[in-house]
Amino acid sequence: MNWITDGITAPKGFSATGIHCGIKRKNKDLTMLFSERPCSYAGVFTKNIVKAAPVNWNMELLKQKKAIQGIIINSGNANACTGRKGYEDTKTMAKVYGDKMGIDQESVLVASTGVIGQPLPMDIIHQGIDEIVKHYGNSRQHATAAAEGIMTTDTFLKEKCLQIKVDGKIITISGMAKGSGMIHPNMGTMLSFITTDASIDQETLQTLLKETISDTYNMISVDGDTSTNDMVLVLANGMASNAPIQKDTEGYAIFREAFYMLNQELAKLIVKDGEGATKFIEVTVKNMHDKEEARKMTHAVITSNLVKTAFFGEDANWGRILCALGYSGAEFDPNLVDVDYVSPAGTIKLLEQGQPIGFDEEYALEILKEKEIKVVVDCHQGEAEVTGWGCDLSYEYVKINGEYRT
Amino acid sequence: MNWITDGITAPKGFSATGIHCGIKRKNKDLTMLFSERPCSYAGVFTKNIVKAAPVNWNMELLKQKKAIQGIIINSGNANACTGRKGYEDTKTMAKVYGDKMGIDQESVLVASTGVIGQPLPMDIIHQGIDEIVKHYGNSRQHATAAAEGIMTTDTFLKEKCLQIKVDGKIITISGMAKGSGMIHPNMGTMLSFITTDASIDQETLQTLLKETISDTYNMISVDGDTSTNDMVLVLANGMASNAPIQKDTEGYAIFREAFYMLNQELAKLIVKDGEGATKFIEVTVKNMHDKEEARKMTHAVITSNLVKTAFFGEDANWGRILCALGYSGAEFDPNLVDVDYVSPAGTIKLLEQGQPIGFDEEYALEILKEKEIKVVVDCHQGEAEVTGWGCDLSYEYVKINGEYRT
Repeated sequence: MNWITDGITAPKGFSATGIHCGIKRKNKDLTMLFSERPCSYAGVFTKNIVKAAPVNWNMELLKQKKAIQGIIINSGNANACTGRKGYEDTKTMAKVYGDKMGIDQESVLVASTGVIGQPLPMDIIHQGIDEIVKHYGNSRQHATAAAEGIMTTDTFLKEKCLQIKVDGKIITISGMAKGSGMIHPNMGTMLSFITTDASIDQETLQTLLKETISDTYNMISVDGDTSTNDMVLVLANGMASNAPIQKDTEGYAIFREAFYMLNQELAKLIVKDGEGATKFIEVTVKNMHDKEEARKMTHAVITSNLVKTAFFGEDANWGRILCALGYSGAEFDPNLVDVDYVSPAGTIKLLEQGQPIGFDEEYALEILKEKEIKVVVDCHQGEAEVTGWGCDLSYEYVKINGEYRT
Repeated sequence: MNWITDGITAPKGFSATGIHCGIKRKNKDLTMLFSERPCSYAGVFTKNIVKAAPVNWNMELLKQKKAIQGIIINSGNANACTGRKGYEDTKTMAKVYGDKMGIDQESVLVASTGVIGQPLPMDIIHQGIDEIVKHYGNSRQHATAAAEGIMTTDTFLKEKCLQIKVDGKIITISGMAKGSGMIHPNMGTMLSFITTDASIDQETLQTLLKETISDTYNMISVDGDTSTNDMVLVLANGMASNAPIQKDTEGYAIFREAFYMLNQELAKLIVKDGEGATKFIEVTVKNMHDKEEARKMTHAVITSNLVKTAFFGEDANWGRILCALGYSGAEFDPNLVDVDYVSPAGTIKLLEQGQPIGFDEEYALEILKEKEIKVVVDCHQGEAEVTGWGCDLSYEYVKINGEYRT
């Protein structure tokens, strides 16, 4: 498995680009993705009852097991809580883009991200689609432009790419994602788009995607709010010419590991770019008697505002970790628990067998001054292990979200 | 039912005070409460698995249906996550205070609030108890001193008092409470102490307390973190000389309403003093098909960081309300929902039958500039109604909690 520095167009047969069309005042706000050949399509979507129009559209195409050839994505407007007109607008986006590319409306996925509750400016989007289809390509620059076009409050690009060899053929898997607020995925996640030239059927791909997200996107949180627009879309066009990847084969194991790693890295990038985040926090709950219980505990810690502000303040206030574990809803014995903080500056044990142990505050501060901190909770009551990723809660988060629409 | 301006010593037979003994650098940090006669005692406690030592002690006394005559309370240290020694320290506090007042150790409740995970400074507490028992009394000033002694990051006193007439006798019910962070009660709540001179047996009082909290303390949230120390303790000493209050009587109905109102007001005071809060937010979900579902929806809105920061920014970003309702876990039809904002400056409708309606941003800003704002979610799908109370999320919250221990 080789990580390579490349973007969404690295797998054979995919091209893309992103432009500024005027939904946002500045910066790119429209992205297109296109595959030469129809793709197996897998997707997972937000569990929020209030789903954005494009979420409903893409779910419908998934249900009908449509082969997909293109995705059109706008940023700056979520097309969520926009009523019946919102859904018509999504279908229009698919139609207009499909017509331009000579493909069927129902082979086009749509995604939107940005402010909730405002109608899409359809005249601007029409003009944007007219323009964007003049510029696409498969170079690294085209991929970067595409990744730029899906950003909202993100501060850096989120692209990951890797290659594996299956059946003697090189397969490339590439992804781009966006954060960075309203991040608390539940089944689906924020926008993440994965392309691959692997040959893999829709059913296998969908099963793999569902398995993968529970330990990747569903284990990150920026602010505990599950968006109306979360989705991960995967397109596989088969152009690597490998024998189709099937379950319980060596090729599947290789592909699965690579697919998992790619999605985990994208999920971590989303958290690292969490709104206002100054620190990346990895929480591992290990040696717990049950994986689902360990998952609840991990979630409680990464979503606690008090834990998050303590990390922002570089305060070794481990009591808040234990408090969050305690109200997580998991059944466990707090009297067996150890808590360690780990960073490049070192490791410090704060709690052992449920008993606080004196620690050197200066050494703790050295550890907490780092940008990436691991919290290790050893339950000493089983073998299950779960890791989740979050970030701190800063003044900047409040500022960004107090001023978002203005 | 008459509200009166008085404190915890207003009911007959109760005396109290608060002093600074040195657990905190400054401000009062030790409070005592004493009843001339043994009291019926009711209590509810945090559902956090990690319970502070005094929570365990008070639960044990409740289980044994002990009559109670005194409470000793320290602020500045939560005595939580302090292991076996923490429990011994709590018992020692009860013993030392009981000995001084000539009452049994097992008729003394204990409460602690403050930082988690540090041992109580028992030498300071011993000296403090020696000192405090020289100063108690039943004046308004004594009550105020007691309410001051339980404060941590609170910025104002939380006292409420009212009188009712039952069976021809005046009954006084009085309470004091503290907030103001780690506030997201679950069954129990933050520290709240209620005294009454009503004659009411332990079982009736306990049942009433349990009923009351689900619509009062359990419907407030400052930051979504359920504390290790939450508790509401109620003492009734019978000195109003009314015939004992029993279920399904007129007297019970009167007492119940007063008890509910008093606790609701204390709960609202806790939220109004939420850490860093600049606005008080009341959320009502009405005309829902099921009360528990309405409760989930209300909770999701009052705990959403994105909703909270939008109120801090005075931004009519109603999409975040709908988003929170959507991920609350409640089953409802978003296409029937109306959302209104109400404040002393007026009322504005933002969403009608699930469809966004254009609104005057300047008028919305006038409404949002007020300090107290109501969000009314009309589901149009039943008759259940729930109200909850929260606050905004400000820079100050981050500051307070990033620097708490330092």
